[in-house]
Amino acid sequence: MATRLEEAEIAKSLDDLNEIAGDTPWIIKEGKLSKTFKFKSFIRAFGWMSQIAIWAEKLKHHPEWFNVYNTVEVQLVTHDVNGLSELDFQLATKMETFK
Amino acid sequence: MATRLEEAEIAKSLDDLNEIAGDTPWIIKEGKLSKTFKFKSFIRAFGWMSQIAIWAEKLKHHPEWFNVYNTVEVQLVTHDVNGLSELDFQLATKMETFK
Repeated sequence: MATRLEEAEIAKSLDDLNEIAGDTPWIIKEGKLSKTFKFKSFIRAFGWMSQIAIWAEKLKHHPEWFNVYNTVEVQLVTHDVNGLSELDFQLATKMETFK
Repeated sequence: MATRLEEAEIAKSLDDLNEIAGDTPWIIKEGKLSKTFKFKSFIRAFGWMSQIAIWAEKLKHHPEWFNVYNTVEVQLVTHDVNGLSELDFQLATKMETFK
């Protein structure tokens, strides 16, 4: 069972995540861990989504994501805890690793 | 190059599409051909998206779609013609065929 992260834990996890996030940082938007990814093509965008889909299923934690052509807008939240948990940061880290 | 469909053509194409759409019809929402698909699981939802992604690339026409867990919200529009074209109905038909 996931645990709801406190403000200070979120700030620390967000800093760690953004160390590997490159030019475009993750932000907390309406309580959700959010980032828009841009790829070179639809094939690259959807190929990345396919890798992340398998990780999501493996982690038993799934993203909210919107895709149009080469763009993927991601929002992560843990509904079970009504906030953010370690799972959101784990999935975000996978997203950065495989982009 | 796609051609912009007229109102009457859209109405006819929409009727034809909804003949195969089952219980949940496609609608035109804010000028876009729209439907929310529900699947039994994330694996089924994303598996379907993967099939459609390949069709989209083949048709050179890509959806706007939002996924969370077993739900996929689809919006189709042809930006080149600032409206709907035959391509939107072709892609929607693939979506119904493979769901």
